[in-house]
Amino acid sequence: MVTLIVPRARAGHMTRIAICAPATPIDREVAAAVTELAAREFPGLVLAFHEQCFSEDGHFAGHDGERLAALLDCATDGATDAVWFAKGGYGSNRIAPDAVAHLQAMDLRMPFFGYSDCGYLHAAFARHGIGRAVHGPMPVDVRRGGGAEAVRRALGWFAGDSEGVETSAGGGNPVVAFNLTTLAMLCGTPLMPDLAGVEVMVEEVGEHLYAIDRLFFHVTAHLQGVAGLRVGRFGAVPENDRPFGLEPIDIARHWCVKSGIPFLGSADIGHDAANRIVPFTLAAAPARS
Amino acid sequence: MVTLIVPRARAGHMTRIAICAPATPIDREVAAAVTELAAREFPGLVLAFHEQCFSEDGHFAGHDGERLAALLDCATDGATDAVWFAKGGYGSNRIAPDAVAHLQAMDLRMPFFGYSDCGYLHAAFARHGIGRAVHGPMPVDVRRGGGAEAVRRALGWFAGDSEGVETSAGGGNPVVAFNLTTLAMLCGTPLMPDLAGVEVMVEEVGEHLYAIDRLFFHVTAHLQGVAGLRVGRFGAVPENDRPFGLEPIDIARHWCVKSGIPFLGSADIGHDAANRIVPFTLAAAPARS
Repeated sequence: MVTLIVPRARAGHMTRIAICAPATPIDREVAAAVTELAAREFPGLVLAFHEQCFSEDGHFAGHDGERLAALLDCATDGATDAVWFAKGGYGSNRIAPDAVAHLQAMDLRMPFFGYSDCGYLHAAFARHGIGRAVHGPMPVDVRRGGGAEAVRRALGWFAGDSEGVETSAGGGNPVVAFNLTTLAMLCGTPLMPDLAGVEVMVEEVGEHLYAIDRLFFHVTAHLQGVAGLRVGRFGAVPENDRPFGLEPIDIARHWCVKSGIPFLGSADIGHDAANRIVPFTLAAAPARS
Repeated sequence: MVTLIVPRARAGHMTRIAICAPATPIDREVAAAVTELAAREFPGLVLAFHEQCFSEDGHFAGHDGERLAALLDCATDGATDAVWFAKGGYGSNRIAPDAVAHLQAMDLRMPFFGYSDCGYLHAAFARHGIGRAVHGPMPVDVRRGGGAEAVRRALGWFAGDSEGVETSAGGGNPVVAFNLTTLAMLCGTPLMPDLAGVEVMVEEVGEHLYAIDRLFFHVTAHLQGVAGLRVGRFGAVPENDRPFGLEPIDIARHWCVKSGIPFLGSADIGHDAANRIVPFTLAAAPARS
């Protein structure tokens, strides 16, 4: 069994969730819908959307310095019980090294909760022992069909309910979960944690099957020593000019066999409303580089 | 100046170019057009399209074993002066390790000529001292606007003419050229050569600017010790839902500055008819692993 790290749900204590956008912005309607859902169903939670969530600078939710500052605001405000990432998209890798530099001496224990592009922060924070990385739904997911259920799963976890956790994995091993492209881009970089002995779950969205094959080629070359690979859903695969000839699970199995990494089957995660929660349980001592 | 390795152009010697497709197939019209062009303008060349160029197995030009066998046929036929890759697309990484295993003891000196996905073979062959990797136009380029000129550039090089070579780079350093995604997927894998002290040119096609940013994040983390990065063209960038805010050359410069890699400016390569020829000039002794 994995060890669950769930925020405090003490009598009389309001759990404060600070929300920032380390990659791309959300709009105010998303924040309003999530705030309303929380107020209605989770009276023990206080949601604090940082104004930076709505900032825009080209592709990003504000320039690198602004996104970094908001993340630090959320993490270092003494009242914060958990940091929730509003949305992925792309960009959290650009601020992850500076976030580590600022936070690694602070002995933070709070969850940092999100997925997709936010995996860069999960990786870097796991490597440096900053808080507790948790893969799970984000505020932006409220826009999906069935998205209220995804947001409810995250809010429930913040409120102390472990119902939304993906429990099929682990079996005594530590577990992590990543978007496949994010993990591929992390491999070999200073943000990458040591995953020796860890079960690694991956999911993807919007990538061609040939690109998925290419990504598994890359990550399996880097993941020697992991306990195994487990595959979530690969959503919205674009049509190729001709059939690729293999499904994502076959591709994953192919590269696991080639690389000698145990293939462990499926995981209930993905870029969709059913995306379950994976609290990272990396047991290794964090790197102090 | 870079040292050019140009095939023999001896009196009375017909230069035989063996063509295979290590990734995806071409159709017979491409082969016919290139053969006709060569016959008309380069009477000293003999083009031998391997039947495998037209094979199909899902995405690929035949299954892995078939593509590998054709590559070995071309490289080990005693009459071959150069191996020309018909097309990229995706897939040469799947056969590269076995190709190395078969070819590394053979002391081959011939050029292996192509670009894009064929960079996996260029990398692996450069690492193991197999032949001479050359980035340059492929038969499939005949289909482009101005494509006859691209093919003519490659054929001219096979015939002993160095006119089509990208000469802006080097300055005494060894040079290599890669598609950016291909290079990113190579980094940290057993196919990757040691690029310490090497000028690395990259080009890309059909990738969003955020993906280009992500790829430079990844490759600059892996390319510590190179002589510098030089950027070719980034063609057919898809429209994003909003402007990214940086052009590819700015993105490259950003990540070079972040990583301490010298940014060396532009290179005249790309997924287009103007794509110039870059014979790899890796000076280091090949790995013998």
